Amino acid sequence: MKKLTGRVTLPSQQNFLEETKELMDRWGADALRDSDGTKLDEEIKQLDAKIYTTYFVARSHNDFAKQHPEEMQQLYLMSQYNTAIDTELEVSFLTGYFEEQIQPDYLHDPKKWWEVIDRTTGEVVPANHWIVKKETNSLLIFKAKPWHEYTVSFLAFMKWDPTQMYNHITNDWRDKPHEIPFDVRQPHSKQFMRNYLKTWLAENPATDVVRFTTFFYHFTLVFNNLGKEKFVDWFGYGASVSVAALEAFEKEKGYRLRPEDIVDKGYYNSTFRIPSRAYLDYMDFIQRFVAKEVKELVEIVHASGKESMMFLGDNWIGTEPYGAYFKETGMDAVVGSVGDGATLRMISDIPDVKYTEGRFLPYFFPDTFHDKNNPVIEANSNWLTARRALMRKPLDRIGYGGYLSLAYKFPDFVAYVEKITDEFREIYDTINGVKPYTGLKVAILNTWGRIRTWQTHMVAHGKWYKQAYSYQGVLEALSGSAVDVDFISFDDVIQHGVPKDVDVLINAGDAGTAFSGGERWKEEDLLSVIREWVYHGGGFIGIGEPTAYHREGRYFQLADVLGVEKELGFSLSTNKYFTEKNESHFISQDIQAFDFGEGMKNVYALREVTDIIEHTNEGLQLASTAFGKGRSVYIAGLPYSHENTRLLLRAMYYAAHKEMALYKWHTSNVHCEIHVYPEIKKFAVVNNSNVQQVTDVYIENGEKYQVRLEASEIKWEDYTNER
Amino acid sequence: MKKLTGRVTLPSQQNFLEETKELMDRWGADALRDSDGTKLDEEIKQLDAKIYTTYFVARSHNDFAKQHPEEMQQLYLMSQYNTAIDTELEVSFLTGYFEEQIQPDYLHDPKKWWEVIDRTTGEVVPANHWIVKKETNSLLIFKAKPWHEYTVSFLAFMKWDPTQMYNHITNDWRDKPHEIPFDVRQPHSKQFMRNYLKTWLAENPATDVVRFTTFFYHFTLVFNNLGKEKFVDWFGYGASVSVAALEAFEKEKGYRLRPEDIVDKGYYNSTFRIPSRAYLDYMDFIQRFVAKEVKELVEIVHASGKESMMFLGDNWIGTEPYGAYFKETGMDAVVGSVGDGATLRMISDIPDVKYTEGRFLPYFFPDTFHDKNNPVIEANSNWLTARRALMRKPLDRIGYGGYLSLAYKFPDFVAYVEKITDEFREIYDTINGVKPYTGLKVAILNTWGRIRTWQTHMVAHGKWYKQAYSYQGVLEALSGSAVDVDFISFDDVIQHGVPKDVDVLINAGDAGTAFSGGERWKEEDLLSVIREWVYHGGGFIGIGEPTAYHREGRYFQLADVLGVEKELGFSLSTNKYFTEKNESHFISQDIQAFDFGEGMKNVYALREVTDIIEHTNEGLQLASTAFGKGRSVYIAGLPYSHENTRLLLRAMYYAAHKEMALYKWHTSNVHCEIHVYPEIKKFAVVNNSNVQQVTDVYIENGEKYQVRLEASEIKWEDYTNER
Ligand SMILES: [Mg+2]
Ligand SMILES: [Mg+2]
Ligand SMILES: [Mg+2]
Repeated sequence: MKKLTGRVTLPSQQNFLEETKELMDRWGADALRDSDGTKLDEEIKQLDAKIYTTYFVARSHNDFAKQHPEEMQQLYLMSQYNTAIDTELEVSFLTGYFEEQIQPDYLHDPKKWWEVIDRTTGEVVPANHWIVKKETNSLLIFKAKPWHEYTVSFLAFMKWDPTQMYNHITNDWRDKPHEIPFDVRQPHSKQFMRNYLKTWLAENPATDVVRFTTFFYHFTLVFNNLGKEKFVDWFGYGASVSVAALEAFEKEKGYRLRPEDIVDKGYYNSTFRIPSRAYLDYMDFIQRFVAKEVKELVEIVHASGKESMMFLGDNWIGTEPYGAYFKETGMDAVVGSVGDGATLRMISDIPDVKYTEGRFLPYFFPDTFHDKNNPVIEANSNWLTARRALMRKPLDRIGYGGYLSLAYKFPDFVAYVEKITDEFREIYDTINGVKPYTGLKVAILNTWGRIRTWQTHMVAHGKWYKQAYSYQGVLEALSGSAVDVDFISFDDVIQHGVPKDVDVLINAGDAGTAFSGGERWKEEDLLSVIREWVYHGGGFIGIGEPTAYHREGRYFQLADVLGVEKELGFSLSTNKYFTEKNESHFISQDIQAFDFGEGMKNVYALREVTDIIEHTNEGLQLASTAFGKGRSVYIAGLPYSHENTRLLLRAMYYAAHKEMALYKWHTSNVHCEIHVYPEIKKFAVVNNSNVQQVTDVYIENGEKYQVRLEASEIKWEDYTNER
Repeated sequence: MKKLTGRVTLPSQQNFLEETKELMDRWGADALRDSDGTKLDEEIKQLDAKIYTTYFVARSHNDFAKQHPEEMQQLYLMSQYNTAIDTELEVSFLTGYFEEQIQPDYLHDPKKWWEVIDRTTGEVVPANHWIVKKETNSLLIFKAKPWHEYTVSFLAFMKWDPTQMYNHITNDWRDKPHEIPFDVRQPHSKQFMRNYLKTWLAENPATDVVRFTTFFYHFTLVFNNLGKEKFVDWFGYGASVSVAALEAFEKEKGYRLRPEDIVDKGYYNSTFRIPSRAYLDYMDFIQRFVAKEVKELVEIVHASGKESMMFLGDNWIGTEPYGAYFKETGMDAVVGSVGDGATLRMISDIPDVKYTEGRFLPYFFPDTFHDKNNPVIEANSNWLTARRALMRKPLDRIGYGGYLSLAYKFPDFVAYVEKITDEFREIYDTINGVKPYTGLKVAILNTWGRIRTWQTHMVAHGKWYKQAYSYQGVLEALSGSAVDVDFISFDDVIQHGVPKDVDVLINAGDAGTAFSGGERWKEEDLLSVIREWVYHGGGFIGIGEPTAYHREGRYFQLADVLGVEKELGFSLSTNKYFTEKNESHFISQDIQAFDFGEGMKNVYALREVTDIIEHTNEGLQLASTAFGKGRSVYIAGLPYSHENTRLLLRAMYYAAHKEMALYKWHTSNVHCEIHVYPEIKKFAVVNNSNVQQVTDVYIENGEKYQVRLEASEIKWEDYTNER
């Protein structure tokens, strides 16, 4: 086969010309980029490669920013809780915050823009019951109720861009100036951003792609008084707030937001919270505004003959690629960090762009690239998890980040990346634009729906959470499975019913979260639509605490559909009869040992007909049941593993009443998968593990054969190669 | 020492005279009783012993009961949940019930007394939207909303006394008639009960004590269609309901109860539920009525020169000995089954009776008394757990149940009981009427307060529940600890504050239950009173999910007092910094290995000053913190063990700021305890285990000495014996 090249982006750096050329050649790279710390030499920029140049829109211009301190970005923040001992209570509202990042906004009247709340009653304290003492950054409540708790929601300026703050502190940049973020909503800032971009484009003729990192508003990242992370929400709109925004919101939406609409009891509308109407309105308001502003910058870039690429992260708030307005920006490309299959799909599935690019791990940083460590291990594990997803929907390009000179010192790593890049191009060249075979379609059902495509149960990008991994495994499993995946919201279902082509709905999450649905499960239309749909043949998979909302004698509101319920302690008086396991169920057929992650306590079968597949320590962990012509499956939790991927796949086929179709294209070994491309009459049998595997392969014509795959191997076959 | 006799009751039976005399002599028994299957011979009745005779008030008179079927006892029951597929839905409301126990009440108009509820909306279905089809015991809803769930709450007659039903089925009594329970609220039944008792008393001159087993209304015990237990609630008022009662309630309380007030979504007002106003009113209504009726029977017994004893169980509903009306009954004695220390205290602490008696385990039944088993083991374990409690507040009498002839065949058992009865009398003779030394006073705080004294977290008497044992351990530990124990309700605290003499409050339970408090923690007065009290020096111990009710950014409403909070998934964005353990805390000093039972996930320290004592698997399990001058302790769960008893004791002393006072009277070994009786200048060092123990004993004068105790040994000492 002719060796393919291209589709690979490398970071480069100063004084690294020859090695760059060598690595470009070995890895087949056709693009070079700088980053937030490295610049490219002119000679490098003249190489036969596309040049990406990192561009910061809303920071890194302190000369300008210092002239317009009133245009600094803002945040609403909540103080700690303070218990009143007496009728007077002084609240040091900055306690716990990092004064190098946060500065209270005394320019706008606190009486108008701040809010003091009695958290014991939930009532707002009248503004004439408190005063602000600027000299001590404190607020004095005169008429406090003793033994009630109070919080202060205050408007602040954000003096330091969070990403630069993070890098600055982590890398000990000492005297390097703190970059001040300014706000595109303000007149001077907006003008400056446009003008500066035009100038910059003119001054950077070698740049082919403007790599926006990113636009206007950073996800919420707030540090504590010790300069350590205090609050991080990759989806948080906290830093998009300002007096100007709040006033514009009122004009546009016809009502005024309260500080509490943003502060949200200190949860700041985390993606795990069921969004309020006000917060949804606010998101919509920001997204529309951001899309319009992004569009103007993209047009300027296009006018210069260059491309616009958006980094999916950092200042990405309002640009959600699965949101309603992203298409209008005219963005050429999106690049993001690939930590696993789900994050790959989050990027590769983005519609309405010319191409997508994934930045693979590991970064070329000294924490991985040092004497005592073999970076090939991380590269291999990253590649194997990502490759599953790539086989379903490839990125258009891949790349790396960090110091190329570091990677260069590890010849095994260089050789391994050469293998990855070749394999990537082979996959891409073979399957790009070809719809892979899928046996069924599944939709993840939650409060957010489409806008959080591949982004559920995520707090900070790539960070592991004890409360999330048992659900994130569902997305990771799906990212490389031979099923179509959709993300739909409760509102979608209420308004339009379950889409015709969906075979299986999945509702996964802890009770009360946006992912399980909480109070949304009070809505009779939601319940009725799903019951009717399952009754007539639909498949419903509940994971963790699906449909959980305690009312009318039910905790799982669809307990009738699920055939299982959770004991909260109120029905201990009612005997639970059904604990016997069905030892040989279709769903568990390939499983050696169950792993439900955090698992779920106190779940039990409601009916005798419920098939209990796993029951341990007096609790049900896995079950299926019929509901009319449909079926449901309950799973206590599903951390990612090859076995759990298979378990979920079987659960979906079972729920969809398509058990036999599973074997149309299939591998018996859970560490292997088969991806089929009917339009080109090819299929690939993939070893997802890093050891040799033997598997039976079931092919469409009903035959099967055995194959041995080397560690990580892909075997491509033509259909015509029938046995 | 002169051998004491008396204070012991034996069961006897027919044709067992000589052996009865022998055992009476060896065990020092001074009372004999029959039971629900054994009768006493006349010769036995003439022995030198008090004779207890079991008396059933509301059953065991089928001749009468069959003449008045309309006076049968009643129940409100709820059907299963039924999902409507169409606008017509037929509900077989008896499905799952035992037709030998349950018979729908068609005498009273279902349209008036039944209720059909749309459980998807919570709305009552108008009575003109359904009809009852008696011939099929079903109910047809015409205007159902498709895909909504419906339940039918129906009034039924209870044809079979639950205790007799249980014994009948368990012992396979075949043709023995089913005893029909009749209702004292009905005119004929009431008259019959009075008349029959008078006749019976006249016919039973040898009886000294009428052992009422019990009175009018059985705790709720409902069987399923297979004749197996379906629902059991030792506190349930279900079987006290009737049309007559509902009408009388309306007259007395001024409003009508709905079926739902009794059915309670199928939870039937379990003791774990936070009681509604209506249910509290209903309990009060029944208790007043029952007390009045009991009083009349007791007076009849007294008029015959005999004593009245009440069995605490079976038909005890409305007679709660810690309720407001029990005193008025004039009851002479209460007898109950002793499963452990807490159930012993539940009996021995009953006020307003002349004496209390405990029936010890094992019962003399073939399940324990057979070739392959040594009944001494159970007797020893029962005695050791009960004895701790007895040392704090002795019962006046002990006894056994079952077939004496069975026990007689086990000479080791006979010898062991001889030891127990002697030891019991020695303890009783030494400490009865003497207040033991206590180092502090603790109050269990929950929704129920005093009426559930020693009865929290109990579903069915003596049955183990996964959801309860981690809390029941608190009561069991306290039952034999050198502390005063009180039970107070939220209303007590709101109305009167924390009682002056209380050092420590304990709030223990799962979120939402009556024992944790659920929505009661919304009440600002409750929160304020406790905060103020702790701030000024009180001790607060929270176990499991104390003060849990999610609102205003808090799950533990007293998180400020507790210094810990539980993560529900909404504040994952907020960093949790504090995980480091304090390896040598006063509270954990004697603990080898922690055991929190079910434990609690996702609890974390809110503040740096919180002392984390145990933190495992990313969750905090044990911590203490200061709040003003007071202190709080959080414990994830406390199943009963000697170690956990010590842990709780230390937690209480710590919370009360009385650490040094712990050593006033103390044993270093957790398997030993010291009980001190200042009025008589005696103390007892007790080995609660069944192996030899060595312990340091700390005595009041500041000295300590070492002592070796044989298995289960008690060593009595006089204070004057100073070392
Ligand atoms: Mg890249
Ligand atoms: Mg079954
Ligand atoms: Mg007895």
